Amino acid sequence: MTSRRKFVKNTAVVGASLPLIPHLSYGKANKAPDQKLRLGFIGVGLRGTNHLKNALKRDDIVIAAICDIDDRRIKIVNDHMKEANVKMPKVFGSNDHDYRNLLELEEVDAVIISTPWLWHTKMAVDAMKAGKYTGLEVSAANTLEECWDLVNTYEGTGTHMMILENVNYRRDVLAVLNMVKQNVFGEVLHMRCGYQHDLRHVKFNDGKTAYGKGAEFGEKGISESAWRTQHSLLRNADVYPTHGLGPVATMVDINRGNRFLSLTSHATKARGLNKYIVETGGADHHNAQLRWKQGDIITSTIDTANGETIIVTHNVNNPRPYSLGFNVQGVQGIAEFDKHTQRIYIEGQSEEHQWEDMNSWLEKYDHPLWQKFGPDANDTGHGGIDFFVLHAFVESAKANVAPPMDAYDAAAWSAVTPLSEASIDNNGAPQDFPDFTRGRWIKRAPYAWMKDTY
Amino acid sequence: MTSRRKFVKNTAVVGASLPLIPHLSYGKANKAPDQKLRLGFIGVGLRGTNHLKNALKRDDIVIAAICDIDDRRIKIVNDHMKEANVKMPKVFGSNDHDYRNLLELEEVDAVIISTPWLWHTKMAVDAMKAGKYTGLEVSAANTLEECWDLVNTYEGTGTHMMILENVNYRRDVLAVLNMVKQNVFGEVLHMRCGYQHDLRHVKFNDGKTAYGKGAEFGEKGISESAWRTQHSLLRNADVYPTHGLGPVATMVDINRGNRFLSLTSHATKARGLNKYIVETGGADHHNAQLRWKQGDIITSTIDTANGETIIVTHNVNNPRPYSLGFNVQGVQGIAEFDKHTQRIYIEGQSEEHQWEDMNSWLEKYDHPLWQKFGPDANDTGHGGIDFFVLHAFVESAKANVAPPMDAYDAAAWSAVTPLSEASIDNNGAPQDFPDFTRGRWIKRAPYAWMKDTY
Repeated sequence: MTSRRKFVKNTAVVGASLPLIPHLSYGKANKAPDQKLRLGFIGVGLRGTNHLKNALKRDDIVIAAICDIDDRRIKIVNDHMKEANVKMPKVFGSNDHDYRNLLELEEVDAVIISTPWLWHTKMAVDAMKAGKYTGLEVSAANTLEECWDLVNTYEGTGTHMMILENVNYRRDVLAVLNMVKQNVFGEVLHMRCGYQHDLRHVKFNDGKTAYGKGAEFGEKGISESAWRTQHSLLRNADVYPTHGLGPVATMVDINRGNRFLSLTSHATKARGLNKYIVETGGADHHNAQLRWKQGDIITSTIDTANGETIIVTHNVNNPRPYSLGFNVQGVQGIAEFDKHTQRIYIEGQSEEHQWEDMNSWLEKYDHPLWQKFGPDANDTGHGGIDFFVLHAFVESAKANVAPPMDAYDAAAWSAVTPLSEASIDNNGAPQDFPDFTRGRWIKRAPYAWMKDTY
Repeated sequence: MTSRRKFVKNTAVVGASLPLIPHLSYGKANKAPDQKLRLGFIGVGLRGTNHLKNALKRDDIVIAAICDIDDRRIKIVNDHMKEANVKMPKVFGSNDHDYRNLLELEEVDAVIISTPWLWHTKMAVDAMKAGKYTGLEVSAANTLEECWDLVNTYEGTGTHMMILENVNYRRDVLAVLNMVKQNVFGEVLHMRCGYQHDLRHVKFNDGKTAYGKGAEFGEKGISESAWRTQHSLLRNADVYPTHGLGPVATMVDINRGNRFLSLTSHATKARGLNKYIVETGGADHHNAQLRWKQGDIITSTIDTANGETIIVTHNVNNPRPYSLGFNVQGVQGIAEFDKHTQRIYIEGQSEEHQWEDMNSWLEKYDHPLWQKFGPDANDTGHGGIDFFVLHAFVESAKANVAPPMDAYDAAAWSAVTPLSEASIDNNGAPQDFPDFTRGRWIKRAPYAWMKDTY
């Protein structure tokens, strides 16, 4: 590792105190083509380990360090490294803040943060301050203040950050993005999206198996139930907006010639989690008395500067098939697509008044990335999209250029959480989005999504 | 006709001035089983004529009078009467208010009002004051004041009125209502509905053919374009909410143990109508300069007293296949059904994580009305539902009992128009629904929908 030239030249060695010296590194130095990206992993739970396994498949990455406070997860990573015949990297995790020592390592160029939500912004801020090109799992921030922390730290340090929204790379999503860019729908008017995923078996377990058994969470649960479920107990908000919102935000160039203006949000009563606890653990289960604040279905409607509206749904506490419920309506036609149904109607091309199966459209407008890397993407998780999001991160980091989805996107998309909470808490009163770009959205150019490199 | 006993005994003969003497006729007198309902038709445009043709098929109706200011429509009715070998009834329509002379007729028991929207409430109010059991086409009212007019007149006169919402009688809608009542979905949490119907060919024509040709409306248009289109020009509101909202309101007993509390609404930019004019009539067409106030897609989200949320969509100015977009999510499962796709997932019964085609469910829970009258319903228009809505009206009127969908329903459903307008005009600010029942919703019993009579 010592033979490698640092590619982020002005990455000062910073201590755990992480002084606020700005690095302003953006675009200043690139990795030479033969150099590998030295990657640190902060958080190697199920999600971080998935990224790590995908990283092991690439020949342009060195796994330089890992951090997790859970020994069991370190052990699992060790097994994966052995299996891949790769030397175990430096390990951190002796305490909650040991990740800062990882960030001090000169031999780390970039980090991927896959930790519980409450750590996301804090760690991303520290990583940017340490000059590490930062990949942050979704959702990026929990409050408006945290949204600003991401933006201000990016602007202050010049260190790039990317929100690792994998759904933006779904094959159908990228094909529809291609169709939007090629004007198949004409001017876009309205979009729908959301996270409609029955997570009851994720939010509760028996403390031993991650999914499907038991009615415990928090200290008695493991994996996501150990931290995720508490958000449902105390926050009546769309706490997970980016899987739906990232793709549609990209289609209408949010933060790049357009922006979210305001939203209103509505929540149903909360029933699903209590029902699940009672059915799984019995009416006498100690969790059966809890009052869940999160409404079972949360509906947010966003107005954009360019006059589109977007419905975002959060529906995770009740039985239903998985669906991100995408819908794009333009002046020329409409597409509705989710995991199970994909239908389109384009005036003048589809049979009048009839839905058309989208298959031929998806093939015709297949994104160049999928055409080129589709075979590589298999077996990387979530139907291939995990390959693409890592690929985009790694290539952007190697070149040290702005990523496809940056700090402004992370802030704007994640802002739906606190804004929906405030709206619900105020009987649906509209909440304005901060302009995280400080007005620069009017001259920022759309990201060049339509390329076959990354 | 002279041999027939009046069944609304206290229907005083009222003059065109329509004094405000309350009739308070509800439930007081019933039609004997062998007696026919003497029906007047106010408005015999396409919609009214459809009702009239269906009335001609019944042996319990006498068509007692018709009214229309358009001679061409009277002529068409005349042809239908001849064809059916039925004597032409008294005709009114010499001026805009000649319908009041129809309402004076002692030999009219009930009226069906199928006129342009701006006449709906005014005529229904006059009809109730005249003691005529009133059937009113959708939407019932244009403003909150008109909503109150319907309620206050009903309460003041005791004359029943029914909003003639035919979609409540769609076979799938009634089957799902049956499923809701039988608790298939468990406690209902969230519903979606709307009017998603490309009406551009209805809103414009060439002044000769009703549908499909030309870019004229208003005085230069005919049929619906003569009056409907002006609403799109000047009102940014969901002007047609009841086709979607009626069915879902019934499922969660609105005004009968539940009520609409408030809504927020959002409108997209207006693009579709201008685009259609330019494409149909050219960029120099005199209508191409108009600025349409109605946003192309309008999204309203309603909160109910019982903690459900309802999304109502109005999408009529752009190309897309017809869909009322129904969606019912309960704690036990979900159904999505429109004209083209009908899918359901019920926990413990459907294959895990998979949508199931609804066919077998719709058969199993087929409503008794459809089982009994399905064959009669064919050829009555809109897939049979026009038979059922007329049937319910006629049977309710013959018995002079409260109809399935009454003045409170007409008011609450139609209130979405002015409330959505106010919300859109105020950046999505929540608008409270008036409690049209004056608090009595807490003790009003649900209407007995599950019967095979009407």
